[in-house]
Amino acid sequence: MSEEFVLDTMRAERVGFGEAVYCASKTVSQIAAILQAAASPMLLTRLDPAAHEALPASLRATLDYDPQSRTAFSGAPKPVEATSGIAIVTAGTSDLAVAAEAARSLRFNGHDVPVIADVGVAGLWRLMRRLEELRRMRVLIVAAGMDAALPSVIGGLVPGAIIAVPTSVGYGVAAGGQAALNAILASCAPGIVTVNIDNGYGAACAALRIINMR
Amino acid sequence: MSEEFVLDTMRAERVGFGEAVYCASKTVSQIAAILQAAASPMLLTRLDPAAHEALPASLRATLDYDPQSRTAFSGAPKPVEATSGIAIVTAGTSDLAVAAEAARSLRFNGHDVPVIADVGVAGLWRLMRRLEELRRMRVLIVAAGMDAALPSVIGGLVPGAIIAVPTSVGYGVAAGGQAALNAILASCAPGIVTVNIDNGYGAACAALRIINMR
Amino acid sequence: MSEEFVLDTMRAERVGFGEAVYCASKTVSQIAAILQAAASPMLLTRLDPAAHEALPASLRATLDYDPQSRTAFSGAPKPVEATSGIAIVTAGTSDLAVAAEAARSLRFNGHDVPVIADVGVAGLWRLMRRLEELRRMRVLIVAAGMDAALPSVIGGLVPGAIIAVPTSVGYGVAAGGQAALNAILASCAPGIVTVNIDNGYGAACAALRIINMR
Amino acid sequence: MSEEFVLDTMRAERVGFGEAVYCASKTVSQIAAILQAAASPMLLTRLDPAAHEALPASLRATLDYDPQSRTAFSGAPKPVEATSGIAIVTAGTSDLAVAAEAARSLRFNGHDVPVIADVGVAGLWRLMRRLEELRRMRVLIVAAGMDAALPSVIGGLVPGAIIAVPTSVGYGVAAGGQAALNAILASCAPGIVTVNIDNGYGAACAALRIINMR
Amino acid sequence: MSEEFVLDTMRAERVGFGEAVYCASKTVSQIAAILQAAASPMLLTRLDPAAHEALPASLRATLDYDPQSRTAFSGAPKPVEATSGIAIVTAGTSDLAVAAEAARSLRFNGHDVPVIADVGVAGLWRLMRRLEELRRMRVLIVAAGMDAALPSVIGGLVPGAIIAVPTSVGYGVAAGGQAALNAILASCAPGIVTVNIDNGYGAACAALRIINMR
Amino acid sequence: MSEEFVLDTMRAERVGFGEAVYCASKTVSQIAAILQAAASPMLLTRLDPAAHEALPASLRATLDYDPQSRTAFSGAPKPVEATSGIAIVTAGTSDLAVAAEAARSLRFNGHDVPVIADVGVAGLWRLMRRLEELRRMRVLIVAAGMDAALPSVIGGLVPGAIIAVPTSVGYGVAAGGQAALNAILASCAPGIVTVNIDNGYGAACAALRIINMR
Amino acid sequence: MSEEFVLDTMRAERVGFGEAVYCASKTVSQIAAILQAAASPMLLTRLDPAAHEALPASLRATLDYDPQSRTAFSGAPKPVEATSGIAIVTAGTSDLAVAAEAARSLRFNGHDVPVIADVGVAGLWRLMRRLEELRRMRVLIVAAGMDAALPSVIGGLVPGAIIAVPTSVGYGVAAGGQAALNAILASCAPGIVTVNIDNGYGAACAALRIINMR
Amino acid sequence: MSEEFVLDTMRAERVGFGEAVYCASKTVSQIAAILQAAASPMLLTRLDPAAHEALPASLRATLDYDPQSRTAFSGAPKPVEATSGIAIVTAGTSDLAVAAEAARSLRFNGHDVPVIADVGVAGLWRLMRRLEELRRMRVLIVAAGMDAALPSVIGGLVPGAIIAVPTSVGYGVAAGGQAALNAILASCAPGIVTVNIDNGYGAACAALRIINMR
Repeated sequence: MSEEFVLDTMRAERVGFGEAVYCASKTVSQIAAILQAAASPMLLTRLDPAAHEALPASLRATLDYDPQSRTAFSGAPKPVEATSGIAIVTAGTSDLAVAAEAARSLRFNGHDVPVIADVGVAGLWRLMRRLEELRRMRVLIVAAGMDAALPSVIGGLVPGAIIAVPTSVGYGVAAGGQAALNAILASCAPGIVTVNIDNGYGAACAALRIINMR
Repeated sequence: MSEEFVLDTMRAERVGFGEAVYCASKTVSQIAAILQAAASPMLLTRLDPAAHEALPASLRATLDYDPQSRTAFSGAPKPVEATSGIAIVTAGTSDLAVAAEAARSLRFNGHDVPVIADVGVAGLWRLMRRLEELRRMRVLIVAAGMDAALPSVIGGLVPGAIIAVPTSVGYGVAAGGQAALNAILASCAPGIVTVNIDNGYGAACAALRIINMR
Repeated sequence: MSEEFVLDTMRAERVGFGEAVYCASKTVSQIAAILQAAASPMLLTRLDPAAHEALPASLRATLDYDPQSRTAFSGAPKPVEATSGIAIVTAGTSDLAVAAEAARSLRFNGHDVPVIADVGVAGLWRLMRRLEELRRMRVLIVAAGMDAALPSVIGGLVPGAIIAVPTSVGYGVAAGGQAALNAILASCAPGIVTVNIDNGYGAACAALRIINMR
Repeated sequence: MSEEFVLDTMRAERVGFGEAVYCASKTVSQIAAILQAAASPMLLTRLDPAAHEALPASLRATLDYDPQSRTAFSGAPKPVEATSGIAIVTAGTSDLAVAAEAARSLRFNGHDVPVIADVGVAGLWRLMRRLEELRRMRVLIVAAGMDAALPSVIGGLVPGAIIAVPTSVGYGVAAGGQAALNAILASCAPGIVTVNIDNGYGAACAALRIINMR
Repeated sequence: MSEEFVLDTMRAERVGFGEAVYCASKTVSQIAAILQAAASPMLLTRLDPAAHEALPASLRATLDYDPQSRTAFSGAPKPVEATSGIAIVTAGTSDLAVAAEAARSLRFNGHDVPVIADVGVAGLWRLMRRLEELRRMRVLIVAAGMDAALPSVIGGLVPGAIIAVPTSVGYGVAAGGQAALNAILASCAPGIVTVNIDNGYGAACAALRIINMR
Repeated sequence: MSEEFVLDTMRAERVGFGEAVYCASKTVSQIAAILQAAASPMLLTRLDPAAHEALPASLRATLDYDPQSRTAFSGAPKPVEATSGIAIVTAGTSDLAVAAEAARSLRFNGHDVPVIADVGVAGLWRLMRRLEELRRMRVLIVAAGMDAALPSVIGGLVPGAIIAVPTSVGYGVAAGGQAALNAILASCAPGIVTVNIDNGYGAACAALRIINMR
Repeated sequence: MSEEFVLDTMRAERVGFGEAVYCASKTVSQIAAILQAAASPMLLTRLDPAAHEALPASLRATLDYDPQSRTAFSGAPKPVEATSGIAIVTAGTSDLAVAAEAARSLRFNGHDVPVIADVGVAGLWRLMRRLEELRRMRVLIVAAGMDAALPSVIGGLVPGAIIAVPTSVGYGVAAGGQAALNAILASCAPGIVTVNIDNGYGAACAALRIINMR
Repeated sequence: MSEEFVLDTMRAERVGFGEAVYCASKTVSQIAAILQAAASPMLLTRLDPAAHEALPASLRATLDYDPQSRTAFSGAPKPVEATSGIAIVTAGTSDLAVAAEAARSLRFNGHDVPVIADVGVAGLWRLMRRLEELRRMRVLIVAAGMDAALPSVIGGLVPGAIIAVPTSVGYGVAAGGQAALNAILASCAPGIVTVNIDNGYGAACAALRIINMR
């Protein structure tokens, strides 16, 4: 069975940002073949350090790789726009990897956004001292695991769009992130939207859809 | 098959409060037979209005029935103690039935406790204006459905025991209360305990265990 | 236990739209009490026809009630803005009730938006003939049940924000909408966001958050 | 406890194709014993590279092993028939391993079928340019993970039998393939059938049942 | 919100059989409007007796309605073809409603097929005495609930295509049909395919896809 | 579609007790037809009072019906054997309906067994005072809902066979009986076996299998 | 925290067989300490080869260890009784490890029982040729994974007690054994009982309870 | 993306005990950075031996690490108070790691509490001989996995607060601890509260909340 890769080359024209390569379920040789076939800059997600290390050195040299977010830039990212009105918020240190995936995906598409970390509701004062900053944003990406109470609290306090990203942080009933996801979907604060568990890339794309059409 | 009811008559001696009759899965004639067999005051829970109405009028006349909480007192409740240090908190109006079950169960056992309603986190100021009151309590019973973010926020703000009661309020992923239960179990605020969904009676008993042994 | 209703009167100042009353788990007398306490116009959701009918006639006369969406306006909605850039799309006729909840929630907040119905992917030509219209929108609310393939297909074709609303339409594994929800969360098209099952109101609020901050 | 292997030697006579050996939960020595006991050609599935490597070299030399599909042929496959009218379609590169299991299972039974890869609905043009080819097929095996929207879209466009194979590609709610499976079962396109997650072998057998009885 | 129905009028040309109307989540007035808009014969499914009774008498008079299967023919079904090679098999009496939905859907499309009932594996002789008949069929639709062991046993005995339909018959872990569905998907007999729980209509469509392309 | 009922007339010869009719998912006319077709005495299960009432009066007159257990005897039960060594135990009053189904199923097959009710572990003394009786039994059928701790405690105290029947008594996480079932399956006491939730009939059959082969 | 082991030394007197040590969640040093504290022969279960290897050589020398079943005998097993009337049946080769755990547990308690392997229903003749042997048994332990159809088929053919053991063999919806467990619980054949997934030890204990009280 | 750690430095003032560092989802460098930033003594939880070993030796030297509980003290714990009235109870040896997490968390906060191990209900006498001791306690932390019957039995025998901790001990339906959790939530004994699976730390905090406010 010969393998054929059909890149969705016109995606940027249709939806405003290009196709990214989800590496988690691809073999190293498939990733290498896609990189060699690509003509324009390309974002790689879920490229774990071992897979990155296993790529041919010549290809690896062309990548801007970030292990925390497991993302790589193949080719130059878009130049940074002035202010985007997007910020990323995390409940705890453990959510930073997901936040980093969102931040890098936005950076690849020309947005350099602040990350406001460690403002989980168990210590509410940490959130309150950043509130004015959050209220000025057009889009907040809020990464939270366990009970994911943070998006609900923010949702009652700010007027901008809130894209909550449930994270798989936690154990027991929180393991895997389903409890966080359900808490977000059931939020008592109105107008919060969500994406798949740990999907920092998807949250970034949703932010781009909002920002691009203003 | 003849039916035999074996009341756990010595429970109050062993655990500090008497047996209650859970009416939800009993027939009306079973409930009536238990009432007739009981020698001492008895609390009935989950007695829905239709079952209450179907009881013989003579038995019904002996009951102090409250439809919101679906509880009945058979015989006199304990006299009210001075201050118990227990309060009940609800996220929304929809959680009041569960709160009422807890309040009535406590009243039957001699505690008249305040219910602080409608302090859900979507409007955080409603909670903050009651904070000093909450911080003085030894035990807070917190009823919340949907995302159940309220116990987590309270958990970061007060020193007393927090018994969260997930409620079945909500729809979609919140239907039945499992999302609320899991959010509470996964709470980012430490030391919150919980009971079964909608189990206002159980929360009251847990509060009694804490208070009785001081 | 006396009941106290604490309306979140300042929500519009904080988040851009006022508190709505979720009627599904409230008693008729609780709904009536809230309506009597409200000073400003208010949106009611999940007010089913039987509950509406059970309200006191004097209160009912003040409501603009729509049975399909189970929404009521208490007081005058906001005047309609010119063009909002929002549209609502449905996969099938069965999704219209959810679409109607979104449409009425937007109308209450000043947006009169088109509903593009019956464009499910089993007959792809129905979607394709509306594509240019969809591509011009800033926000698409897409209601779909069963396999919810529609948001994924639209996601690959348009640049605007896509708020998918899984609906509880279907039976077997589709019953209750969890299959639709998971399909949306797992969408192969990037940047789609979602809300709770059947949550037309939440989708409308999310659209307002996007539109209000432009 | 002595081990006894009872091969279902007459299966081909009864159902049209022979027994295959599912290796995933067998020990290497059990697999070796079965191979030594087999009199006729036999297909092995889920033989992962480590187990293959651990087989005695003499046995390994008799196998035609393919690591991508984790299948091995013990003995000669059936000669290839002219045209079978079967094709295999995949949504993405990540589904190729499952597609390969189906393709190899068909090849062992005498069918050399085309694999049409990377036609997922996020870039609909990739599917449309292959449509005429797909419409001519008697049986399409469609492997798709995540939201598995591809079988639904194909189901509205072609007249042949469609055997969808949900794959375990994805993370979060998609992890393990249950979301893909449920989306396929709930498909809005009529007459799509499915098999267990990642069951390329089962899909091939189902295609054989359809083709053999024409 | 005005309602628009967009019938998929060309479906028969594309996939070989026309669109059916799934009535379960439609209002009576929606069903009536669709019937009035339809130009050609149309199959209605999940039309429960109460909804049928609520249709305007003039419309009802035009329908051939069958309460067991909850199907109706609007307009004339296709004339019956000679032999189709399809048969329907049920494990028990309780599965007959699902079998009837399949049988009526096939009849509407020109196939009059035998129903072989009550051959569940708890009394294996009932199946064995029908075996020769079953082995001659090109397609077997097998409806079974509870443990759904019947498709597995048939799968080891016959060469034709087997479309298993899990039914929601049963209680406890069998309630709703998920146990039956999973047993079928996990079948130890190869090449069995399945559809959604209780989806007799879908099984019929799948059979049509197989038969139409011979 | 004509209906055909194929009674498994030889079951008693093969397995030691005759076929029973599970009425829950059958129509009244199907039940009536089966009763008319039956030549020998027959046990009916899950015949709820409304279905019983809807049977033709002539048929109903031939039945020995018990509403608590929802069982009916059509024809004479077997004469009672001397001592069977079987007893039925329940945790609470709410489990009595399930116990009654087991007791009646055993009675139909010639065993008149004691029911020891209300010995749940919350009042352990109630169990302890019956312990010697329980220790003499060959088979104990133990019906328990909620946490189903009773079978585990009995399992550590008696030497006979223990068939635990999880019941659907309870609410929240206990609703439907899955929590009770899982607790029984995970029992820390060795050698406890179980059947489906609320399956008193199945427990009785299992007891017959044990007793019949002594 | 000092560790204290409280062996249940009188269990054999109470229930007929001694306490076994479940090693899976114990550390090697805990297992060693228990072995050193034990005065009488003891069965160890779930002792995987790595843990066995890590035990002190002096202790290891005292054990009769079997890697397939992961069981060890510490001290002499009971002498073998004449005929026990127990047999173990497996659907496939993959179920042999679970069967072995049951066989070794029975052997430790004095019963040497036959294992009838590879009689899964996909090749029904394999079961039929052993039927007379199976019909003579007092207790059958039937290990089956995937769809677990085997116990249902046997249940309709033999009069003895049937203890089905669902195994975790399989993938996709079968992974972990829950599909097999539910199929067994929902069995259409009456009187089948079950134990936890992969619980060969528990099935053996249940067989002992049945045999010991004859 | 620069990382910022915002310790909740005032937590002890608000809730009575300081913030702990949950290490499971943090990188070694994040843990090291937090330790270096901390000014006051700090408890670390879920620090597995490999992560502990990977810390810089200089930091590691400052820690009091306990591998069984996976906890570390950074800085001096509080001096031990006289009697706390707290005890920890475990059903089996396998629950000791969770018990140890609770014991160490309490020790860090000044309470040296007894651990009463191996009193599971399968050998009830082990519990009974410790009953008087248990009845004197103000708070019992009860760690139990599998069916978690122990908290229910204790709940019927003692008057103090009972914080049950479900553990992930077990396999099959018990794997991961959900069966234990649900059994505890559904307990037939009133007033038992619970925390997340394996959450020994949370149980300790809950005990502190109860003790601190006396």
